Amino acid sequence: MSPDRLRELLQRLQHSELSVDEALKQLSELPYRDIGVATIDHHRALRQGAPEVIFGEGKTSEQIVAIADELVRAGHNLAVTRIDAAKAELLCENHPSTRYNAAARMARLEQRPPQTRPCPPVAVVTAGTSDIGVAEETLETLASVGLKATHVYDVGVAGIHRLLGRSTELEHASAVIVIAGMEGALPSVVGGMVACPVIAVPTSVGYGTALGGFTALLSMLTSCASGITVVNIDNGFGAAMAVHRMLPKVEA
Amino acid sequence: MSPDRLRELLQRLQHSELSVDEALKQLSELPYRDIGVATIDHHRALRQGAPEVIFGEGKTSEQIVAIADELVRAGHNLAVTRIDAAKAELLCENHPSTRYNAAARMARLEQRPPQTRPCPPVAVVTAGTSDIGVAEETLETLASVGLKATHVYDVGVAGIHRLLGRSTELEHASAVIVIAGMEGALPSVVGGMVACPVIAVPTSVGYGTALGGFTALLSMLTSCASGITVVNIDNGFGAAMAVHRMLPKVEA
Amino acid sequence: MSPDRLRELLQRLQHSELSVDEALKQLSELPYRDIGVATIDHHRALRQGAPEVIFGEGKTSEQIVAIADELVRAGHNLAVTRIDAAKAELLCENHPSTRYNAAARMARLEQRPPQTRPCPPVAVVTAGTSDIGVAEETLETLASVGLKATHVYDVGVAGIHRLLGRSTELEHASAVIVIAGMEGALPSVVGGMVACPVIAVPTSVGYGTALGGFTALLSMLTSCASGITVVNIDNGFGAAMAVHRMLPKVEA
Amino acid sequence: MSPDRLRELLQRLQHSELSVDEALKQLSELPYRDIGVATIDHHRALRQGAPEVIFGEGKTSEQIVAIADELVRAGHNLAVTRIDAAKAELLCENHPSTRYNAAARMARLEQRPPQTRPCPPVAVVTAGTSDIGVAEETLETLASVGLKATHVYDVGVAGIHRLLGRSTELEHASAVIVIAGMEGALPSVVGGMVACPVIAVPTSVGYGTALGGFTALLSMLTSCASGITVVNIDNGFGAAMAVHRMLPKVEA
Amino acid sequence: MSPDRLRELLQRLQHSELSVDEALKQLSELPYRDIGVATIDHHRALRQGAPEVIFGEGKTSEQIVAIADELVRAGHNLAVTRIDAAKAELLCENHPSTRYNAAARMARLEQRPPQTRPCPPVAVVTAGTSDIGVAEETLETLASVGLKATHVYDVGVAGIHRLLGRSTELEHASAVIVIAGMEGALPSVVGGMVACPVIAVPTSVGYGTALGGFTALLSMLTSCASGITVVNIDNGFGAAMAVHRMLPKVEA
Amino acid sequence: MSPDRLRELLQRLQHSELSVDEALKQLSELPYRDIGVATIDHHRALRQGAPEVIFGEGKTSEQIVAIADELVRAGHNLAVTRIDAAKAELLCENHPSTRYNAAARMARLEQRPPQTRPCPPVAVVTAGTSDIGVAEETLETLASVGLKATHVYDVGVAGIHRLLGRSTELEHASAVIVIAGMEGALPSVVGGMVACPVIAVPTSVGYGTALGGFTALLSMLTSCASGITVVNIDNGFGAAMAVHRMLPKVEA
Amino acid sequence: MSPDRLRELLQRLQHSELSVDEALKQLSELPYRDIGVATIDHHRALRQGAPEVIFGEGKTSEQIVAIADELVRAGHNLAVTRIDAAKAELLCENHPSTRYNAAARMARLEQRPPQTRPCPPVAVVTAGTSDIGVAEETLETLASVGLKATHVYDVGVAGIHRLLGRSTELEHASAVIVIAGMEGALPSVVGGMVACPVIAVPTSVGYGTALGGFTALLSMLTSCASGITVVNIDNGFGAAMAVHRMLPKVEA
Amino acid sequence: MSPDRLRELLQRLQHSELSVDEALKQLSELPYRDIGVATIDHHRALRQGAPEVIFGEGKTSEQIVAIADELVRAGHNLAVTRIDAAKAELLCENHPSTRYNAAARMARLEQRPPQTRPCPPVAVVTAGTSDIGVAEETLETLASVGLKATHVYDVGVAGIHRLLGRSTELEHASAVIVIAGMEGALPSVVGGMVACPVIAVPTSVGYGTALGGFTALLSMLTSCASGITVVNIDNGFGAAMAVHRMLPKVEA
Repeated sequence: MSPDRLRELLQRLQHSELSVDEALKQLSELPYRDIGVATIDHHRALRQGAPEVIFGEGKTSEQIVAIADELVRAGHNLAVTRIDAAKAELLCENHPSTRYNAAARMARLEQRPPQTRPCPPVAVVTAGTSDIGVAEETLETLASVGLKATHVYDVGVAGIHRLLGRSTELEHASAVIVIAGMEGALPSVVGGMVACPVIAVPTSVGYGTALGGFTALLSMLTSCASGITVVNIDNGFGAAMAVHRMLPKVEA
Repeated sequence: MSPDRLRELLQRLQHSELSVDEALKQLSELPYRDIGVATIDHHRALRQGAPEVIFGEGKTSEQIVAIADELVRAGHNLAVTRIDAAKAELLCENHPSTRYNAAARMARLEQRPPQTRPCPPVAVVTAGTSDIGVAEETLETLASVGLKATHVYDVGVAGIHRLLGRSTELEHASAVIVIAGMEGALPSVVGGMVACPVIAVPTSVGYGTALGGFTALLSMLTSCASGITVVNIDNGFGAAMAVHRMLPKVEA
Repeated sequence: MSPDRLRELLQRLQHSELSVDEALKQLSELPYRDIGVATIDHHRALRQGAPEVIFGEGKTSEQIVAIADELVRAGHNLAVTRIDAAKAELLCENHPSTRYNAAARMARLEQRPPQTRPCPPVAVVTAGTSDIGVAEETLETLASVGLKATHVYDVGVAGIHRLLGRSTELEHASAVIVIAGMEGALPSVVGGMVACPVIAVPTSVGYGTALGGFTALLSMLTSCASGITVVNIDNGFGAAMAVHRMLPKVEA
Repeated sequence: MSPDRLRELLQRLQHSELSVDEALKQLSELPYRDIGVATIDHHRALRQGAPEVIFGEGKTSEQIVAIADELVRAGHNLAVTRIDAAKAELLCENHPSTRYNAAARMARLEQRPPQTRPCPPVAVVTAGTSDIGVAEETLETLASVGLKATHVYDVGVAGIHRLLGRSTELEHASAVIVIAGMEGALPSVVGGMVACPVIAVPTSVGYGTALGGFTALLSMLTSCASGITVVNIDNGFGAAMAVHRMLPKVEA
Repeated sequence: MSPDRLRELLQRLQHSELSVDEALKQLSELPYRDIGVATIDHHRALRQGAPEVIFGEGKTSEQIVAIADELVRAGHNLAVTRIDAAKAELLCENHPSTRYNAAARMARLEQRPPQTRPCPPVAVVTAGTSDIGVAEETLETLASVGLKATHVYDVGVAGIHRLLGRSTELEHASAVIVIAGMEGALPSVVGGMVACPVIAVPTSVGYGTALGGFTALLSMLTSCASGITVVNIDNGFGAAMAVHRMLPKVEA
Repeated sequence: MSPDRLRELLQRLQHSELSVDEALKQLSELPYRDIGVATIDHHRALRQGAPEVIFGEGKTSEQIVAIADELVRAGHNLAVTRIDAAKAELLCENHPSTRYNAAARMARLEQRPPQTRPCPPVAVVTAGTSDIGVAEETLETLASVGLKATHVYDVGVAGIHRLLGRSTELEHASAVIVIAGMEGALPSVVGGMVACPVIAVPTSVGYGTALGGFTALLSMLTSCASGITVVNIDNGFGAAMAVHRMLPKVEA
Repeated sequence: MSPDRLRELLQRLQHSELSVDEALKQLSELPYRDIGVATIDHHRALRQGAPEVIFGEGKTSEQIVAIADELVRAGHNLAVTRIDAAKAELLCENHPSTRYNAAARMARLEQRPPQTRPCPPVAVVTAGTSDIGVAEETLETLASVGLKATHVYDVGVAGIHRLLGRSTELEHASAVIVIAGMEGALPSVVGGMVACPVIAVPTSVGYGTALGGFTALLSMLTSCASGITVVNIDNGFGAAMAVHRMLPKVEA
Repeated sequence: MSPDRLRELLQRLQHSELSVDEALKQLSELPYRDIGVATIDHHRALRQGAPEVIFGEGKTSEQIVAIADELVRAGHNLAVTRIDAAKAELLCENHPSTRYNAAARMARLEQRPPQTRPCPPVAVVTAGTSDIGVAEETLETLASVGLKATHVYDVGVAGIHRLLGRSTELEHASAVIVIAGMEGALPSVVGGMVACPVIAVPTSVGYGTALGGFTALLSMLTSCASGITVVNIDNGFGAAMAVHRMLPKVEA
């Protein structure tokens, strides 16, 4: 509760426009709701201007549907990440307007389509073809917060001219999300080419010394290009949400 | 070289306003200079609007001074990170306008003071008193790219009301840089409180299971707050440069 | 054998109330029984006032049933942890009073219901919905040692007001068991809010940098809140047993 | 602020016993104080009945003294952990009543001696002579919160009869803090011998595969004795504070 | 584009043998082609004299076929590594001349058989029978770049006379590729026996402390024999390509 | 070839009792045979007095049978470790006298039963019931080299009296093989109780911080009991072979 | 206490040859002595036939001397491992017959010289010159338990003929202790050459991927030679004590 | 001994041109010499055409000089790696023709200057200025085996045009040694640019997530450019020796 609203509330109490019980209720009114298996945060959408997001991994279909029911009831848009096809099925049955993207392992349910923001598109770049699944999660998330996007796939550093040939596209982006597995070198090169925000997403592509994405992660965190930031392995969703924080909101 | 400049160059050659040798020279003219121990990139300042930065660790004083000489000669502003007092001394002798901040282990040399940017201040938050050294590096870097800053120190999550009492300050920031060692939990809480960009900086504060900052790093990368991005351990410089990428440039 | 009982035994021998052979037998009488695949400790229940517990993982159904037979024969209550539905089936067939909780992966068989202890309930708190399985194991174990419990689910730190809204409940608990995966930040915040024992249980919820629960574990061990103790990943059983040690026993 | 105090405050405002400004001030009055390098939490002593504790590592002598000044001014008792002799000197100069224990690397400053609590002593057990430094930190901390203690040193499992010979002492303790480096096996044996709380403290004693204490830590977390809890490597302070949480407070 | 070709191009423009548009086109003509899921590098074969290689892991059959179609269309030879039988089937259907080696998990499609190079055979040595799968991948790759090979299987160091009995064979090889799992000791012994290049390939053979091949990898990197180089775990393909770089090309 | 045999051979050549070709043949006669997928070492049995052993993991049934055929042909006894039931079936079909122990995952084929050695039995001790599979592999291997054995199961340190009750049995053993997962503390206690060789075998029993057996392994290597040696995780075979090396051979 | 001695004691009590108090005293008489900083185990020498050993690391000179005083007083021989020259000095002053070996970082004090055992010498083999310090610790320890030894230095596997040239020496040893850093391959080769016990000691020799001895350790544990056992990194003392357990005692 | 030499030796024995003792001596004549602290391999230079190399780390000055004396006596050239200035001093005193390069931490002593080989120079490339020390070790080693070299410093991937501007130089090299710390991305880019051998050397430059060079190492092993091989961290010597193996020897 903001200081202004608090002062107003106290003044209305002082002026008897409000009873002590009403004041107490307003002071304690919780911006969340306990539905048993989850405590739903109805304020977050307001606070951060994004759909409510359910992390699908480790939840049963029933739990996901229960949470979705509550969010839909409250009028929110909704996204479920890391949800496999089997779990998505029950959700789609209960909420037929749900759209499921199998490559992204992500489901979206929109009661009000997000308003498109005016800034230039975000560039989503992958080092290889095997990174496309993570890129899809990124693109779905960007769409869910009203951001335009363009993608550039399979331009890893071992054929550096492929990347250089797309430099103009990258230079005009609002931000660049660089998705790479294996040695994760691509963000360093991109970071040296553009002045806009660069968010690096390590992927679990590779074997042996790729360490399930940790080599790419460590590599990106140790990048010699300055000002690059990094998210969790395969976390295309997180990278998009980071860009969502960076770019002007519709009514801001 | 941009397509437009290339077309113009070729046309001037076609119209004999340029000799083949002059064209060749322009095409090959390198935006960097090899000074033996380093290859100086004179274009970066242009490309990214920041001072030239020397990573001080692992370089001798002589190498640092040699690189600084070339950068100063070319009119650049200059910052040296991770430089101890002993190495900084030779630099200060050779370039007396250098200002050294021991807590930040950083030296700055400015030929043209950076222009202050119009956006609200960046909030620099630490979990503890021991994280202040990294915060100082962040503040120096923000100043070097013309960004205003405010700081909030020692508001770790074990006394959560200390953080909540500063929420207004955080909500009005352009971006929040959250610096924490030990369990690195602070960015998750801050990430849930504000809508602006949150950059998490793990520090090497702690012992045993703190793993020299790796626990904080892993914790921040695994944050349940969405859209938080992370930089290397103790990399206050990198976090500030990431914000530099995110916020509007003076003439943009 | 306690010094008092030993003195008494020796005196009875001295006074010929006991033969040398009887004395020898009493001195060597083992408080355990070797049943081939296991050495059953019949004294533990006495020593620690808890049901006998079988660690189900890595044992065959036949081994579990053989151990259960011996324990039941001796009149003990019994709990089996980390037992899947398939293995539990044979146990239920042989001991029909067994109750199996699939979410907790735990089976209980009680010949004498445990006596409820008079202390206030233990609070079992989870950061997310995906941690509920571990919470269930905790709740089953608390029940098996006669402790009352209350639970608070899905109050992770990224929506800190959800936790603050439940502070009264936590402040009145005998102890708080905090169960969290991902960055494992919740125990630090709870530890700063309450004065009673806080036991932290890291869970394997999360992916990539969550490291199968190790990030949460390391985070909890490095907590800036003082006096928090930690158990193995997903070890809801162990946390409940730790609380069992801390709170007054029925006849103590 | 408790619901009861809040209702009272609102009623006093309603009855004009309080102005809006006074009510606002009381609602916002912060239980902490920002002294620049730290945000001092004056409520914690109240909330948790323990001295204020400064983590000495990574802080300058000047920072430690500044925080101590504020705490002393507010009438608190004070302990500084992981502080070396050099840093302790300045503190002792500024606050002559400070007592420094070099083996424990800990300083204590008590304005009111803590009241001794009525429960039986806490047993502090070490596996070897090299673990005594950590035991000293534990003993200092227990003393600072008014708990009696007894210690049993050098009873590691490779000479198991040494431990068995002290079993009566352990069985009568309020809690046992078991401190061990190398393979960290001692807590498992103790955990099977006593029914009271067992807190395991891994130490960095050992070389090679001792991994600076991580082997002992992992070993303790994986203990086959149930209900043992663990703290960070060498964290004798934390173990004592955990016991402080478990045992009855003086006026509770 | 080489300096010589550039000068020639500019001179032709100057002499009006070329229009500005034609010059621009030649300067920008990209040596790759974007086919949606991949950016095909048509220059690599030219640059490096090897077939185009698709990393099969993490790609769908459809993606592999799409890339293969483009490469075949352009006249390239093609190899797919780490492709299982199921995925290989669709490729074989679409390109019936594909030859699949299940032990090597590799598919090859050759439009022009590679020219056999004149140097002595490459020796492919394994420590055990379980390493043969990786050896097969190596042999397929060597064949694809026109190199002859000989193999020596199951001559691990625990029966050192088996290796010594084959020393003449190794001494006459162009290069030796040593493939070993477990403790990975074989390359050190071979490295001391021969003067030619030795490339060590760690394999994931072994269990427990074999760490999925990391022990062999670390062992090989730490070899006391000088001048041994190492590739990723199970990367028989990479070792063969390294030898391809080392040995004279057909027209060199 | 021993110096004595070499001198004799040379003298026979000098005395024309041997042709140069015969001498060459004898000097080069290889004590192994290359059967394509393996290089069989026919000398090892002679050198070390044990059956030939095939490591079953990572080999196909066909490879195992091929190696077995050669060994049987040469009159050796044979053991196959880490072989699952499916692979063992083909072996049993081809060599019907093969005996397969599923719990031990081991197959034995004996053409001449091993001669029982006169030393006291080897004690095989496990911490828990879940370690019995590894114990079975140990017992099979001991039997294959003619060593008597006794076993003591489920005497982990959390119920230390169970172990102490069996001390006489351990004190009279030729050697003690201690098999334990989880925290791996048992060898330290046994090592302090007996003077004979103690070989510690870590097992992969446990979860989370048990790290698949690495915690037990590290713990055993860091044991405070002196003179304990350790083998790979789950390597019951290796422990038995180590004892085979230590105890007197039949004709020694 | 052995069953026989117990029966005798009870019979003497029954026959009044012993009072209850004397019986109690004998039953409780502890085979150790608490000297404050340590609990001295006076039975170990008896149980295991070796000198009492103090682990010097992490103990102060004063603590070492206090323990030594007690051991000397009781007539024991004494060895101190991992003791630097500075700490050894005080020990030598207090007990002038102490002999300090700086390369071995070990001090020995013998009141009765150990009796030389009749078995053939133990071979101590190192891979390199840098491993000699650990070999010295091994040799000192072997001497302290009356075992003869021979050493073979610098015969690492990269020059395999150096090792083969010493095979006779190794084949006639009672046991072989193989000491190696870097890739730790030597024990595998030795293990294949000899039938006697092979104890592998990894050393911290090497850099980078040598991981302070962990690569050698992992390599040795994963050895393809069967029946090799391993001790902690740089633990020459432990390897010698393991051999002490294996070889016949003087009066056995 | 080669088969041909063996046949000749046997024939001379048969023809009485040789006594049995002389034959035995020739057969056993060892190509190495035991000097106490080391076993010198006098054949290696012959076998591999390189100077004898002493690994300086972990050896005393006296040991280094003793080994050098023997090598010099035998007429070899000599190089000592990883030797600090203090140790080098004694060597220089004893062998005044020794040349010490402090940046490379390497000493060379040449009795016959190595013959320069006819192949094009080897390119030694570094990502940063801080990698120059390792590059110096590489250059010294290349010189010691008669290979010409050129170097390109500070062309890391964050300013990719710096590298592209040197592409011609790289394309004409015999081999490229790429030295990089931090994220170690440079070899991937170089590997895509040139067809010759590329040897990657990770360095310990960087902090935090650079993991002392392990991030660069893992990155290089996981490179998406094919046929790149890798050596130990900071092992400039090893990379040069690998190139020595690859390029034609003077008389080959």
